[in-house]
Amino acid sequence: MVTEGKKYVYAFAEGNGKMKSILGGKGAGLAEMTQIGLPVPPGFTISTEACNDYISLDGQLPQGLESQVEEYLKRLEDEIGKEFGDPNNPLLVSVRSGAAVSMPGMMDTILNLGLNDETVEGMVTLTGDKRFVYDSYRRFIQMFSDVVLGVVHYRFEEILDKYKRRQGVEYDNLISSENLVKVVKEYKDLVLAATGSAFPMDPKEQLLLAIRAVFNSWQNDRAIVYRRINKIPDDLGTAVNVQSMVFGNMGNDSGTGVVFTRNPSTGEKKLYGEYLLNAQGEDVVAGIRTPNDILEMGRELPIAYEQLVGLCNRLEDHYGDMQDIEFTVERNRLYILQTRNGKRTARASIKIAYDLVTEGKLSKGEALLRIDPNQTGHLLHRNIDPNASLEVVTKGLPASPGAASGIVVFCADKAEEMGNDGQKVILVRAETTPDDIHGMVAAEGILTSRGGMTSHAAVVARGLGKPCVAGADGVKVDEVKGLCVVGNHTVNEGEVISIDGATGSVYLGPVPLIDPELSHEFQEILCWADLERNLGVLANADTPEDAQKARDFGAEGIGLCRTEHMFFAQDRLPVVQSMILSETKSERMEALQQLLPIQQGDFYEILKVMAGYPVTIRLLDPPLHEFLPNPTELSLEIQKIKLTGRNKEELHDLEELLRKVKNLEEANPMLGHRGCRLGITFPEVYEMQARAICQAAAKLGQEGVDVYPEIMIPLVGHYRELEIMRELVVQIAEKVEKETGVKLKYKVGTMIEVPRAALTADEVAVHADFFSFGTNDLTQTTFGFSRDDAEAKFIHEYVHRKILPENPFVELDQEGVGQLLEIAVRKGRTVKPELKVGICGEHGGDPSSIDFCHRTNLNYVSCSPFRVPVARLAAAQAKLRNG
Amino acid sequence: MVTEGKKYVYAFAEGNGKMKSILGGKGAGLAEMTQIGLPVPPGFTISTEACNDYISLDGQLPQGLESQVEEYLKRLEDEIGKEFGDPNNPLLVSVRSGAAVSMPGMMDTILNLGLNDETVEGMVTLTGDKRFVYDSYRRFIQMFSDVVLGVVHYRFEEILDKYKRRQGVEYDNLISSENLVKVVKEYKDLVLAATGSAFPMDPKEQLLLAIRAVFNSWQNDRAIVYRRINKIPDDLGTAVNVQSMVFGNMGNDSGTGVVFTRNPSTGEKKLYGEYLLNAQGEDVVAGIRTPNDILEMGRELPIAYEQLVGLCNRLEDHYGDMQDIEFTVERNRLYILQTRNGKRTARASIKIAYDLVTEGKLSKGEALLRIDPNQTGHLLHRNIDPNASLEVVTKGLPASPGAASGIVVFCADKAEEMGNDGQKVILVRAETTPDDIHGMVAAEGILTSRGGMTSHAAVVARGLGKPCVAGADGVKVDEVKGLCVVGNHTVNEGEVISIDGATGSVYLGPVPLIDPELSHEFQEILCWADLERNLGVLANADTPEDAQKARDFGAEGIGLCRTEHMFFAQDRLPVVQSMILSETKSERMEALQQLLPIQQGDFYEILKVMAGYPVTIRLLDPPLHEFLPNPTELSLEIQKIKLTGRNKEELHDLEELLRKVKNLEEANPMLGHRGCRLGITFPEVYEMQARAICQAAAKLGQEGVDVYPEIMIPLVGHYRELEIMRELVVQIAEKVEKETGVKLKYKVGTMIEVPRAALTADEVAVHADFFSFGTNDLTQTTFGFSRDDAEAKFIHEYVHRKILPENPFVELDQEGVGQLLEIAVRKGRTVKPELKVGICGEHGGDPSSIDFCHRTNLNYVSCSPFRVPVARLAAAQAKLRNG
Repeated sequence: MVTEGKKYVYAFAEGNGKMKSILGGKGAGLAEMTQIGLPVPPGFTISTEACNDYISLDGQLPQGLESQVEEYLKRLEDEIGKEFGDPNNPLLVSVRSGAAVSMPGMMDTILNLGLNDETVEGMVTLTGDKRFVYDSYRRFIQMFSDVVLGVVHYRFEEILDKYKRRQGVEYDNLISSENLVKVVKEYKDLVLAATGSAFPMDPKEQLLLAIRAVFNSWQNDRAIVYRRINKIPDDLGTAVNVQSMVFGNMGNDSGTGVVFTRNPSTGEKKLYGEYLLNAQGEDVVAGIRTPNDILEMGRELPIAYEQLVGLCNRLEDHYGDMQDIEFTVERNRLYILQTRNGKRTARASIKIAYDLVTEGKLSKGEALLRIDPNQTGHLLHRNIDPNASLEVVTKGLPASPGAASGIVVFCADKAEEMGNDGQKVILVRAETTPDDIHGMVAAEGILTSRGGMTSHAAVVARGLGKPCVAGADGVKVDEVKGLCVVGNHTVNEGEVISIDGATGSVYLGPVPLIDPELSHEFQEILCWADLERNLGVLANADTPEDAQKARDFGAEGIGLCRTEHMFFAQDRLPVVQSMILSETKSERMEALQQLLPIQQGDFYEILKVMAGYPVTIRLLDPPLHEFLPNPTELSLEIQKIKLTGRNKEELHDLEELLRKVKNLEEANPMLGHRGCRLGITFPEVYEMQARAICQAAAKLGQEGVDVYPEIMIPLVGHYRELEIMRELVVQIAEKVEKETGVKLKYKVGTMIEVPRAALTADEVAVHADFFSFGTNDLTQTTFGFSRDDAEAKFIHEYVHRKILPENPFVELDQEGVGQLLEIAVRKGRTVKPELKVGICGEHGGDPSSIDFCHRTNLNYVSCSPFRVPVARLAAAQAKLRNG
Repeated sequence: MVTEGKKYVYAFAEGNGKMKSILGGKGAGLAEMTQIGLPVPPGFTISTEACNDYISLDGQLPQGLESQVEEYLKRLEDEIGKEFGDPNNPLLVSVRSGAAVSMPGMMDTILNLGLNDETVEGMVTLTGDKRFVYDSYRRFIQMFSDVVLGVVHYRFEEILDKYKRRQGVEYDNLISSENLVKVVKEYKDLVLAATGSAFPMDPKEQLLLAIRAVFNSWQNDRAIVYRRINKIPDDLGTAVNVQSMVFGNMGNDSGTGVVFTRNPSTGEKKLYGEYLLNAQGEDVVAGIRTPNDILEMGRELPIAYEQLVGLCNRLEDHYGDMQDIEFTVERNRLYILQTRNGKRTARASIKIAYDLVTEGKLSKGEALLRIDPNQTGHLLHRNIDPNASLEVVTKGLPASPGAASGIVVFCADKAEEMGNDGQKVILVRAETTPDDIHGMVAAEGILTSRGGMTSHAAVVARGLGKPCVAGADGVKVDEVKGLCVVGNHTVNEGEVISIDGATGSVYLGPVPLIDPELSHEFQEILCWADLERNLGVLANADTPEDAQKARDFGAEGIGLCRTEHMFFAQDRLPVVQSMILSETKSERMEALQQLLPIQQGDFYEILKVMAGYPVTIRLLDPPLHEFLPNPTELSLEIQKIKLTGRNKEELHDLEELLRKVKNLEEANPMLGHRGCRLGITFPEVYEMQARAICQAAAKLGQEGVDVYPEIMIPLVGHYRELEIMRELVVQIAEKVEKETGVKLKYKVGTMIEVPRAALTADEVAVHADFFSFGTNDLTQTTFGFSRDDAEAKFIHEYVHRKILPENPFVELDQEGVGQLLEIAVRKGRTVKPELKVGICGEHGGDPSSIDFCHRTNLNYVSCSPFRVPVARLAAAQAKLRNG
């Protein structure tokens, strides 16, 4: 029976998952779980409306709220068979805030509310663990006093520290129960001294005070600022969740654990998890006792185990996904504390999605949406060559699959720094914490000496798809000395080790890695994706080997073949340099004549591998001085000769070289004399490249191979540039057609990589068969960021401080750069409705960027060969999400 | 009476100036002049329709055309009293093409058509100048044979050269009449040999052939390509103008000259020009005889002179502008060959416009539109200090006013190269040709030893507003030796000279220059402009001196005050460097504390000068390494110490310095760690600057001075950057207000100088009180051009080859960069309809860019102090043109 007036309080059983606005997110979730019949520890939720009324009443509890709370508390006592304040069998509850939108700054959880000087003794009797109970009591006092009574946190810590010093122990959990009793006494004295009142002993008073504290936290400064920034309405209000506490440490008929409904590492359909008899959840998390395999529970707590197995199935059916479930058994009664979609390895996510489709629990489309494409990218990481004979120096848990070699570092900052510098590092730590995530992101792999399969390192590494070996006892880390002992070997920071996250093995030095095969399930899922997606998926590849790799991964052509990489090969660079340093056109032509057959050979091989598919070849792009020696080094060399008198015969040549190199030096090479600007001022270079492409295509044509070269002019900013370069290519192509008698099927298009090209795309499109967005350079010019400088100097700080949501070189900046893509597509297609448009920057392999490309009606994305499967999947998801 | 069928031929008197599409531009002009009663040598125009019909008839003259031509020829003979082919008094005509749109590639002018072996003798008798007549005849044969009969030009030149060699002379005009008779004979033989037919002697046949040649030239390749590129319809067709020739060398009752209706140098209302008795126009232009002042004509040809004076007035009334008139007197009969708005100096253009308003011939608005703002910019150039006592080493004609000092160069290419390098050069040449224009543009001034006030050098220099001394006999140029003799002194290339184009004086070495005063008329006209314009005009000024100059020129505030220039002062740089090189925040704070009072002093003075007006101060913008030594030089210094063992005590410091400098080095500084990126990562620098500004403003407030500092955050690309920097400034301002008790009237805004800021201007505007377009950087990022590199390496080639219409750093690229301005204004004002928006790039002083700013509804432009009057005028013109 509800008291008069508004209904403010809802038992979990009265709500459901859709009532977020009234029950908050957490309350609606608890209601939903209760609704589907899960044995959730019972409780009730005080509505967001109560919060709003409380605020509009200037901090008075609204009429009827107190009596409704009392009523629901009574129901709770009846249901659970315990009573608030009963010294023999006390009801204890947790109190949590819970708005419709998750927000920082809100009141933290208060656990074990209901403990007082009497009930604490009852709990000692019930659990037989005085240390545990008094520790819970002192934590409750500390938390409650901090968030409800406003007695600052550190004053309690001082007392605790005093007893740790007295007892000579380092960790909280080693304080004896006798000392904890004294701590509790001193805590209560502190509260009296600080507030002028004794710590409240009446559980109902505790509860009402806690409810007020939750309501008040809605109005604290941090929450208000957060809502203002994130445009969250102030009148959403927060709900309050009051839930009965359950205890897994009430004897050998109790226990606690975590279970995954399938193996989160392999995806195998088999319960997977850890469990401790007669223990609280924090014992599992803290790693104080080593948990048993979940199967052990079948023997020790057979009834609860049976029930758990049934629930696992029911939860999978309900959520259509593998679940990660926290549970507690209190005196043979099973309670589900939390269930959520379980984190998993890429390998597992694919197997699970595939199996769920096979089991009829999911449609193919749903399954495709279940897989995180970014994560599957890591499936394509390398593994250790099984044919190599290697010595395993120690073993840990196989916490996240994949193999890696790298330089040992012991600190996350350093890992990040070196990783950003392009160095491969392995982060080695006793255990990881959330503070280490940036270092884990930058590392090739993670090795810890403590923690299990559900430790922080293991969970995060699986999420990141990084190889991880966890809990390797054989590794002793000494961060101060900057070394670790691995088995019998001492490894200093800076030395190389290798790990295999699939087996848990650790190796000294580097190991031979091999490319992975795609699993049968993955192949199958990618086929589903191919049927779904609109976007074509091409690859960026500069060599025949990369081109072959790209085809193996399902690329439908090459979206970017960079010709300059071919110029850097050791046997070619001298010719390229002599071409650049030519003072006359005839000297330059001579060098180009040497390069022509070499380039022709390159293109011949690549076009051949990609027979039947388009191969987009970008003509020379970087500034010429990139191919030349460094002028500072040259200056130093010249000074040395002058000062020492040695090697004088080289002086003249070096001085001459320096003069030419300095002539080509640029203040901002990114924005300098490069791309089609070179093609216009030194047309003979582009002529040579166009000829090499056409001759290669003609030769293949004569051999009966079907090839589609697409010649891409870089860095066009004004349509006239493209017009002139197109004319040049067409003339060469016509000449080659005449010379060989082969009719070439070629296209000429441009990269859109400076804002002006996008803004004037209607003019540019007239002369283009296709557009390809060079989003790396377009991001540089749109932001005015030099990637080389910005990533080293400030972008990470920008992301860290949330000035930018993401590094725009990793995830396409849809708000800014994206507008230029939209403008270019719209204007380009006004002139040529069928204009082919793609993207070939690194964003072409990033799922959120791919989603944007789909929505912007691009024809294709092009990415590195290893990202091709990721892109196929992401393209399908984009279609499924946006239609 | 018109013959049957279409009317193809129009006497000049039958048409008018509006009939461009049927008579072509030239024909309509001749008709207009005839209509208003000018004594134009009579003639007729064959319509563009005739051309189109000729083409559609595949090269047949359309029905009726020939008979109409004959009829109009007859009328012409009657009117002028000469007859085609009459050996005693022959009618000679010119034949010219003339389309509605002026086009290259069309047929050149044929003069003296009607000459043959008989009429040539008649002309000898009439003029008494056999050399002149035979030279005209051989030129006619050569021209006609080339363009009508297709006998290439150089074959005639070979014959001419042969006779020059024989006679041992260098120039055409020195060939004797006897030899010219022989040349004519050989020319005719050549035509017979080359074409198989004799050169046509029948004038009517000559005329019909010439008409066909004009029609055919409409269809030549060059014209077709030009029309395609410029999107000119192919069916416009060209008209043919047939006009009677008149001769100023028919005795002492004949003559020829050029007259300006007012003095083109000073604007004085007095005829100004040059005249030669018994001469042809080319004698004046070629400078063979030195012409007399036009006043001489009043004595020698009084009747014609009286008529000329009357016509000058009539023409000014008709065109409402000063005219530049070419005339010829043939046997006391005055003919006007051409009249056009006369080129003039800036000074003259202002006086003329002002006087025309005073005389009631023009409205103020029309007068404002008459003045070329770019040209008036040069009025603001400097003159020689009249108090300096200087030795004039030689004098020439005062061809274009203004004074200049610079390094002597003798070739236009070198002048351009050095000028673009920022060096001041004086281009010294015997005379200039159109090939020299690029050098003249780059030079500070021009000095020639030959030519008069209407010589090429003089006309072009006046147009450019460059100082020019022309026809200085005392200067002997020896380009081969790279020197010139000036008076008695030898000046080598590379030495400095000075010229004063207002007096014609030439000086050795540099001279003291002073700033100009604005003339009364100019001041008045600028007042009219101020009443007309919508755009505000502010100045870019970094010093109190520049600020004062800006106010004197009428600036309504400072649109850009760059604070970094203050950092480069010799006494401050060491402090700035120590600030940059600080390893700790406290070290940095110490250096900043030293800079604070200095900066405060800077701002105090500038704000004081600009009391009552806004002063927009940009916080530190350039990358920090700009303030540090060059790392290559440091490396060389270090190596030197190591190799020589000298100054070893400095080694450690230098190595340490190099390490820090290298740390700050950037690959592309333009896009690097600068602007607000510095403000975010090193907030203490911006804090110091904000405090200096606020304290200066507060101090002035206490002194009762009304100041409006506007703090501008540079290089914002994402609104969060501005949000954070704004917060920083506001906090400092509030502190200073508290400390001083002065309420500050300040604004915080941003530069829009990267494309992303423009694209997301709606987000940025939320945090901005104003936008200022930094179009220099915005042009760099939109094109992807580094100005430093692009201007040196390829922009000039791009402009030269018409890939770009203009250097976009000089004239705003309206198609590309302009779109971003439009987007930013539109989006910014969606959020804040009253948002103040201006431009502070160099484009702020460019008239065409100012016109764009007006159309884009900007509030103001800001430019260098010297450009302020230009901008005031251009802003008024923009309003007058666009409303």
